[in-house]
Amino acid sequence: MAKLKIIVSATSFFCTRIEWALKLKGLEYELTVEDWFKGKTELLLKSNPVHKKVPVLLDDGDVIAESKVILEYIDEKWKGGDFYPLLPQDPYERAQARFWAQFADDKCVFGAFEACLAEDGEEKEKAVETTLESFTYLEKQIEGKKFFAGDKMGYLDLVAGWIPHWLSVMEEIGGIKIFDAERFPSLHEWAQNFIEIPLIKECLPPRDVLVNHYIRRLSAVRSLKPNKP
Amino acid sequence: MAKLKIIVSATSFFCTRIEWALKLKGLEYELTVEDWFKGKTELLLKSNPVHKKVPVLLDDGDVIAESKVILEYIDEKWKGGDFYPLLPQDPYERAQARFWAQFADDKCVFGAFEACLAEDGEEKEKAVETTLESFTYLEKQIEGKKFFAGDKMGYLDLVAGWIPHWLSVMEEIGGIKIFDAERFPSLHEWAQNFIEIPLIKECLPPRDVLVNHYIRRLSAVRSLKPNKP
Repeated sequence: MAKLKIIVSATSFFCTRIEWALKLKGLEYELTVEDWFKGKTELLLKSNPVHKKVPVLLDDGDVIAESKVILEYIDEKWKGGDFYPLLPQDPYERAQARFWAQFADDKCVFGAFEACLAEDGEEKEKAVETTLESFTYLEKQIEGKKFFAGDKMGYLDLVAGWIPHWLSVMEEIGGIKIFDAERFPSLHEWAQNFIEIPLIKECLPPRDVLVNHYIRRLSAVRSLKPNKP
Repeated sequence: MAKLKIIVSATSFFCTRIEWALKLKGLEYELTVEDWFKGKTELLLKSNPVHKKVPVLLDDGDVIAESKVILEYIDEKWKGGDFYPLLPQDPYERAQARFWAQFADDKCVFGAFEACLAEDGEEKEKAVETTLESFTYLEKQIEGKKFFAGDKMGYLDLVAGWIPHWLSVMEEIGGIKIFDAERFPSLHEWAQNFIEIPLIKECLPPRDVLVNHYIRRLSAVRSLKPNKP
């Protein structure tokens, strides 16, 4: 079998969740690293012409894009036997995992991004408040459990896995506070536990690399924003 | 087994795709119909407190929201034997179906909505152009095939199933032209074929009901839009 390849960027948690999944499955892979500031490679543009975004999984000629689609692909292609299951087996539990994964990406990730980018003052306060509401839903999902699906780490943990490491960088650079331990005690406990799992920890980009990336990226995005009238 | 219930609105294709799936599976169901203009019922607010949106599937105490999540649930709960398969069996083909379903909803549906809502002139032209680009990708997916997955109707056909019936209403009310037969010949052939399948046809809301709904809804949404400075 040809070795799996993933096109990634060094700082994107959408990519790290794929690495975690492949490691959980015990699969070997190679990384091809894109540099956000140097422009996109021919390989990325050819592999994901629709969205032109990382991550992309290259599996012996088959090309799969979009991180949650890739996670499901990995779980369906390498299943049974000794392969670690990512999604639960029960159809209703699978539906719940998919619902909350979509919610976590649509509302929590993009809520936090928007709060970072928002202008100081009323715009930022409103963006933070909306994101806090979304995190409150996520807090309820993890209450009383070690992982989102119960006793074992799975799909939704990987999707929410940016929270323990990336969110504090976003808070620092964006001048916001989202992840308050008193407001989200269960999510905090989960985060501290999740980040210490060796397989999870070993894929994390160094914090200073993330800080530098977000400073440059925030500045680049802000310079593209139209000035208010 | 308690009868399945779906909370729907009479005009939403996100709901009709669930009805199609249940009919393909040979499952009986009851409809609870929401009225977009009368406000949301207690049942909807209790069943989908996160998004407060139709469709919602009620399956003997289990509640599932978000139309693509519901489609996968239906396919996973009622599978094997005589049950009609919605998604392909091969992991790569499943990944492709999921990728394009997400694309069709994110880019084609919301592209068409935005083109309808856009102000006449440059804003509308740009929104139409973007949506046409998205439809070009979808056209390539159906070229040379009867259905998106090949010879048999499946998941992606249901997700794209709004195109043959709803899009022309959106074009009429929004003053736009997207679905040109010369530009999208394969998609047109698929659409004409799909809409004539009896099981598909019998779930379609009457065109005049859709026209009235979109006129009222467009007017309501426009009145909420902030005036330009």
